[in-house]
Amino acid sequence: MLTKVKRAYIAGFLDADGSVYVRLKPNASYRFGYQIAPYVALFQSQKDRKKFEEICNLIGLGKLRVRKDGILEYTIGRTEAIKEFLYMVEPFVILKRNQVNLMLEILERKERSRDKKDFLVLAELIERFRELNYSKKRKYHNIH
Amino acid sequence: MLTKVKRAYIAGFLDADGSVYVRLKPNASYRFGYQIAPYVALFQSQKDRKKFEEICNLIGLGKLRVRKDGILEYTIGRTEAIKEFLYMVEPFVILKRNQVNLMLEILERKERSRDKKDFLVLAELIERFRELNYSKKRKYHNIH
Repeated sequence: MLTKVKRAYIAGFLDADGSVYVRLKPNASYRFGYQIAPYVALFQSQKDRKKFEEICNLIGLGKLRVRKDGILEYTIGRTEAIKEFLYMVEPFVILKRNQVNLMLEILERKERSRDKKDFLVLAELIERFRELNYSKKRKYHNIH
Repeated sequence: MLTKVKRAYIAGFLDADGSVYVRLKPNASYRFGYQIAPYVALFQSQKDRKKFEEICNLIGLGKLRVRKDGILEYTIGRTEAIKEFLYMVEPFVILKRNQVNLMLEILERKERSRDKKDFLVLAELIERFRELNYSKKRKYHNIH
């Protein structure tokens, strides 16, 4: 378990240049035709690669890759890893508080989901999530 | 004085989407023809304006403005305020550790600076700073 100070640092990093996201991905092999695909990512330029790797190693839950545009992206994709990460930063996030809480609710419900009704509730929550990330007030599209 | 946890959060935010910068600005009214102009800034999209204002108020050392491209920029420009901010985050920064320490050295030397020799040492340190921010390894130019 990381110290409070490390967790607060990571929360600040996530708030400033990170992404918490979940979407319904069409996938015929899934029961209701969609896969629930959550992910969390942190971004950074390649300039500080070595030090950014330190931060990624501190977290130790995802994978670092270089995107085609040269930006480093540290992605956490496994559900259990995302939950662990979000519970870790949850007490400290400010900007992404709603996203973190809604994502945790979605992941908890996903595990308990049994029938179509459960799936429709999840789809509704995922739509609410989309609205949180792409509010009409959004004035510019960044890399997040 | 902010708690360690708040200071670590702000350090994470600065590392991810902030800027620490100093430049020599041509200005004939200054003794050696140049003004030493330092600044620290945090950036964010307008989407989370209210919560970003919370963070700015927590810091309480700068000014928030909306840039022409719609990005929010919280700028700290007064030397004393920059020093206070940097000492606050210094134990927690990872990516911008070199910039923070070099900037503190420049600001300390600036106060003690008396003659042309002192000014030339400062100019040298400012050049080193420029190299830190725009390393050749930099692969993309972001808004920072």
